[in-house]
Amino acid sequence: MKQIAIGIDLGGTQVRAALVDEQGNILARAEDRTDAAAGPERVLSQIHGLAEGLLAASPTVSVVGVGVSAPGPIDTVAGVASDVPTLAGFAGFPLKAKLQARFPFPVSLENDGIAAAIGEWRFGAGRALDNLVYLTVSTGIGGGIVADGRVLRGRKGMAGHIGHMSVMPDGALCPCGNRGCFEACGSGTAFTLRARMRAIECGETVLGRDGATIDSQHVFAAARQGDRVANQLVDEEAEILGRGIMSLVHIFSPDIVVMGGGLSNEFDRLHPGIEAYIARWAMPAFRDVKIVRAAMGQNSGLAGAAALVFLAEKSPRDYSRQPRKT
Amino acid sequence: MKQIAIGIDLGGTQVRAALVDEQGNILARAEDRTDAAAGPERVLSQIHGLAEGLLAASPTVSVVGVGVSAPGPIDTVAGVASDVPTLAGFAGFPLKAKLQARFPFPVSLENDGIAAAIGEWRFGAGRALDNLVYLTVSTGIGGGIVADGRVLRGRKGMAGHIGHMSVMPDGALCPCGNRGCFEACGSGTAFTLRARMRAIECGETVLGRDGATIDSQHVFAAARQGDRVANQLVDEEAEILGRGIMSLVHIFSPDIVVMGGGLSNEFDRLHPGIEAYIARWAMPAFRDVKIVRAAMGQNSGLAGAAALVFLAEKSPRDYSRQPRKT
Repeated sequence: MKQIAIGIDLGGTQVRAALVDEQGNILARAEDRTDAAAGPERVLSQIHGLAEGLLAASPTVSVVGVGVSAPGPIDTVAGVASDVPTLAGFAGFPLKAKLQARFPFPVSLENDGIAAAIGEWRFGAGRALDNLVYLTVSTGIGGGIVADGRVLRGRKGMAGHIGHMSVMPDGALCPCGNRGCFEACGSGTAFTLRARMRAIECGETVLGRDGATIDSQHVFAAARQGDRVANQLVDEEAEILGRGIMSLVHIFSPDIVVMGGGLSNEFDRLHPGIEAYIARWAMPAFRDVKIVRAAMGQNSGLAGAAALVFLAEKSPRDYSRQPRKT
Repeated sequence: MKQIAIGIDLGGTQVRAALVDEQGNILARAEDRTDAAAGPERVLSQIHGLAEGLLAASPTVSVVGVGVSAPGPIDTVAGVASDVPTLAGFAGFPLKAKLQARFPFPVSLENDGIAAAIGEWRFGAGRALDNLVYLTVSTGIGGGIVADGRVLRGRKGMAGHIGHMSVMPDGALCPCGNRGCFEACGSGTAFTLRARMRAIECGETVLGRDGATIDSQHVFAAARQGDRVANQLVDEEAEILGRGIMSLVHIFSPDIVVMGGGLSNEFDRLHPGIEAYIARWAMPAFRDVKIVRAAMGQNSGLAGAAALVFLAEKSPRDYSRQPRKT
C-alpha cells in the first residue's frame, strides 16, 4: 500500500485537503469554503469531512499522519491558536489536541507561512537549497524561512511573521492594529486600495471607468494595455515588494527568495521591478540573490503540511533536526 | 596547562585581543587603535602583535585556536572579506587564509554581529535560551541571531545584517548607499546628527549652547537634567529602536532581545520607551518578549570569537551543529 500523508491547508476563505505522497505528488484533492464565522468545532468538522471523503475514494493508501497548516500566529509548541483574526473563536483554542481527537493518525500543526516554505523547499522552487525565504503576497503578507538547511521556528514556533515588519512609520493601517507594516503597504489588499484611490484622484486611466470595480487583476490587465496610471501602480508595488525583500535578504542571507500568493500570478510583470530594487540598493555582497515565483502555486501549503508528517515520522522527537536531503 | 582560545575583535576604530577560557572568562586583554588606512597587511600585523604579547605574558596556557570577529559583510564560508567600508584594502581580501598564515593554531572567522551574539548566548544575557536576537547600536547597527538553539548564518555566513532593514522609504542616507535603513535612522551616529540639527532649530535647549559640541552622552546628560528637547530626542530614539526591534520580534520570535553597543550604556533610559512600543504595537502573542542589555559590555564580540574556537574544536566539520548546552 502506498504511504501517504493527509495535508490540510486551513485558511480564512478556503479549507483544502489532499492526499500527498513522500515525493510531494498530490494524489487527490478536495476543498470547501471555510465556515469561518461558525466557530472552531464546525471548522474541525469541515477538515475531518474533507479528509474522510478523500480516504473513502482512495481505499488502497496507508496514512502516515495528518499535517495541518493554519493561519498564525499559532503556538505550535503548545498546539494552541493564539489569535486568528480571520476565524471566529480561535483565540486560545487548543487546535492540535482538538484535531488529534478527530483523527486516528498523528497530527502535526504548522503556521501557514512556514508550511508553505516547507512545501517550496522540499518539492518546489527551493529544492536542494539550504537558505530560502518564502513570502506569500495575497490578502496579507506571510512567510517562512529555511536557514542553514533547517526550518526556522523560533519561540512557540511563531517565526516568519514578516508581514509585520514595519516599513513606514505611521503608514497605512494594518489589520494587526499597527500602521506601516509590510502587509499594510505591500499586500494585494493594499495594492487594490491604492488603485481605487488613484482611480478617483486621476481621471486619465481606464481603471474604474463608468463605475467598474477595481481588483488587482484589473490593474494588471490595464497595465498590459498601456494604461499609464495602472503601470505606475504596478511599478510602485514592485518597489514596495523589492524594498521589503531587500530587508529580508540582509537579515537572512538566503540563496533564494520564493514569492507565492495571489499577486505571484503576476510575477513576470512584478519581477523586473523587484530585481531592479535589489540590484540598486542591496549591499553588493547580497545582490546576486535569486527572486523566483513559487513552483507549487496554491499547493505550497498543502504539500508542506504533508511533508511535516514524513519529517515527523522520521525524527519524532524533533523533526526540525532531520537532515534535509533524503 | 589551562586550555584557552585567543579571541580577536577587529573593528574600524579598535582592535582587541584576549585570552579566553572555555567558560568565557577573560584572562588577559590588550587593544590597539586600528591602523585602518594602512591596508590589511598592517592590520594583520597588529592582530598578530597583540596576540603574541598576550601569550608572552601567559606562558602557562595551551592555545586551542584563534577566533576572529571582523566587520561584515564577510563571506565566512570562503573566508573572504567582501567589502569593509571602515578598513582600507579589505575588499575581496582572503582574510581567513592570511590570518591562518600568521598563526600556528586553527583560525575561525565570524561576522562581528554574529560573534557578539554568540558571546551573549554562551556567556552573557542569553545563556540557556534557544532563541535570541542580538543587536548592537553604536556607530552603526549590527546584529546576530540564535534560533532553535543554533547560530543563524545563512548563505556565505552573512545573515544578521539587520542594520540594513529598510524602516523608512527615502529616509536618512545610510553609509551603505541606500536611504532609510534601520542603521541610518536608529544608530548612535543618526541620534547624534538629529540632536545637532534639533539644537540649531530649537533655541530652548542647553544642547550646543555657546557652541558646545553635541555627542550622544551630552544628550542623555541634558535629558537627565530635565532638558525638554533632549528628552524628546531620547524618546524618539527609543521609539525608532522599539519599532525596529518589534519587526525583528515578528520575524524571529526570540525569547529575548539583547542590546549592546555604545547606546546600550543608556539602556535604562531607553528601555521603557522600547518596551512601551512593543507592548502597544507588537501582535499580542509576541508582546511578552524580554528586551535586555548585553551582559558582556564591550566583550561580547571578543568572548564570542573565542567561543567559536571551542565550538569548532568539538565539531570541526560543522561547529554550528554542536549542541548548545555544555
